[in-house]
Amino acid sequence: MLTRPDVAIVGAGPVGLAIAWRCASRGLRVTVHDPAPGSGASHVAAGMLSPVAEAYFGEHELTGLLAESAARWPRFAADLAEASGADVGYRADGTLVVGLTADDLAEARRLWSYQQGVGLPITPLRPSELRDREPALAPRVRGGAVAPGDHQVDPRRLVAALRAAAERAGAVLRPARVGALSEVDARITVVAAGCGAAALTGLPVRPVKGQVLRLRAPGRGAPDFRHVIRGYADGESIYLVPRDSGEVVVGATVEERADTEVTAGAVLRLLRAAVDLVPELAEYELVEATAGLRPGTPDNAPVIGPLPGRPGVLVATGHHRHGIVLTPVTADLVTELIVTGEPDPLLAPFTPDRFGKEPRWN
Amino acid sequence: MLTRPDVAIVGAGPVGLAIAWRCASRGLRVTVHDPAPGSGASHVAAGMLSPVAEAYFGEHELTGLLAESAARWPRFAADLAEASGADVGYRADGTLVVGLTADDLAEARRLWSYQQGVGLPITPLRPSELRDREPALAPRVRGGAVAPGDHQVDPRRLVAALRAAAERAGAVLRPARVGALSEVDARITVVAAGCGAAALTGLPVRPVKGQVLRLRAPGRGAPDFRHVIRGYADGESIYLVPRDSGEVVVGATVEERADTEVTAGAVLRLLRAAVDLVPELAEYELVEATAGLRPGTPDNAPVIGPLPGRPGVLVATGHHRHGIVLTPVTADLVTELIVTGEPDPLLAPFTPDRFGKEPRWN
Repeated sequence: MLTRPDVAIVGAGPVGLAIAWRCASRGLRVTVHDPAPGSGASHVAAGMLSPVAEAYFGEHELTGLLAESAARWPRFAADLAEASGADVGYRADGTLVVGLTADDLAEARRLWSYQQGVGLPITPLRPSELRDREPALAPRVRGGAVAPGDHQVDPRRLVAALRAAAERAGAVLRPARVGALSEVDARITVVAAGCGAAALTGLPVRPVKGQVLRLRAPGRGAPDFRHVIRGYADGESIYLVPRDSGEVVVGATVEERADTEVTAGAVLRLLRAAVDLVPELAEYELVEATAGLRPGTPDNAPVIGPLPGRPGVLVATGHHRHGIVLTPVTADLVTELIVTGEPDPLLAPFTPDRFGKEPRWN
Repeated sequence: MLTRPDVAIVGAGPVGLAIAWRCASRGLRVTVHDPAPGSGASHVAAGMLSPVAEAYFGEHELTGLLAESAARWPRFAADLAEASGADVGYRADGTLVVGLTADDLAEARRLWSYQQGVGLPITPLRPSELRDREPALAPRVRGGAVAPGDHQVDPRRLVAALRAAAERAGAVLRPARVGALSEVDARITVVAAGCGAAALTGLPVRPVKGQVLRLRAPGRGAPDFRHVIRGYADGESIYLVPRDSGEVVVGATVEERADTEVTAGAVLRLLRAAVDLVPELAEYELVEATAGLRPGTPDNAPVIGPLPGRPGVLVATGHHRHGIVLTPVTADLVTELIVTGEPDPLLAPFTPDRFGKEPRWN
């Protein structure tokens, strides 16, 4: 590609690659700049598509965007499978929200009452119903609820598929680090660099460390449970994401730190809660313990839209704990903005100008 | 080396390499056969030199050999440092035996009473004395004792130093697997192949799986405790071995299994006990979780001496949990037997013929 690209994307995580794929499919000339595609937060992410189980008090607008993007996921996954020839492990078994002790159950119930109150599909279950659905749960588990619309995908397979689809559509990957936006020459530059967006744009994006474990079922079979399990166990909040491959992802800590060390205390907390909720996990192999950095923002919501004071620069970052579920809607909204020049009304609460008119970009 | 060697050693773990070094130093021509030196049990071992804290009911003769070998360790370490130019991390800070709960303390006390009864140097401490010696211990720890003569060494550095010393003395390493003793041509063959000795000799040596963690102190400094800690915590028996490098080894499970998978349940048990005993370990980095196979025997004691029915073949294996502490005495006894042809009386309880006159060797 010798001519100036229409769109240069900084960052080859799921968001950057999905934008690349969508833009290239619309006939735009696209480059994606990343020395290590898929090595950021998505490499560690579990891949829960949980607009319900991840909806929190006071995050009403974010909850709406999560629900919108989750609704786009089945079609997005099907399109992507067709475009890439690869499967992303989309599974629609639903999510169980459970509490180990009476206190944990009260905490879980408080949250799902809020979720019901804003109209999200979550249904409390009696303990016997819970165990009928998932006999692998510990007998101690006091109760829970089911969010049938909360699904999952495998983020590492997602990145591989998006990369294949983007390249098949004509996007070009450039394996080099971008140190400043002035190094990029394109009609439109999209900063989808996760935590790296802070240095590139001056926006208040900060790293939020998450530690995650990957277990594997004995004998290489599938885990004995099918649902994603969102559990509260002795005050610890964790999730368990079972995959057909036998893998179970156990996550995640949320720490205001910028290092990626795996600590003994975090592994202990995750394993204790996991085994308390699903005792058979004690027999699983521990195959990986990793830490990643989520791009967090002051209001926990993503930053999507034009960078103030910097014509031609768009931002798509700050997805924090929701990068995987928000990938389809982010790619759609950014692509539409590039193609039509008109922002979708959905974008309004999430544009960068909510943090001030002129961030300290460089 | 074109001529037939005097001594061929199968297995380049600490025992095999120490025999090689000692024999080569006596002027014998020595070959050592191992496709992966130091990759067996020693790679996982913590390196406690604990004749006292590891003395158990009913293992009186083994306890004597442990004490004898531990007494040889300071001189062995000094000789080895001189011969290899490398340090093996010998540390004489002593071992604290501690109990977390009243039940744990009763268990620990029962054991150290036995140890005192057989004349081993171990002294009960009041809780305040315990904490004066090691303030990093949890306030919950109920009590303990000190075994000042129980020291430590770094097994990975030991293997490197022994290898250097053996090669400097003229021993030749052959990086190939020995499938049968008939493949080896030497005046004397020494089987020091750990669990692999079973297939080579027919002796009842079985793998005993051990899972071990390696933590690292934050900021790359030394751990905040100096003693080896042998702890009982809610029924779990573990040890914590601090090194100057900042490493802390946490071990170990004892499982009648032959696989080397790291399981979630074992890591959970080790971490829980470690953090309960020394809370600051929660902040340490978890850098390694590994499993190894110790060579166990029916009576938990090593097998050292002539293989019945097989002239010219000696055995030095079955060291189970004691391979590192027993390395000096094993090397000395085997070398003397090779050089003089006369077995030291110390060997009597440990010779292979205690398992029958003619094992199914092949």
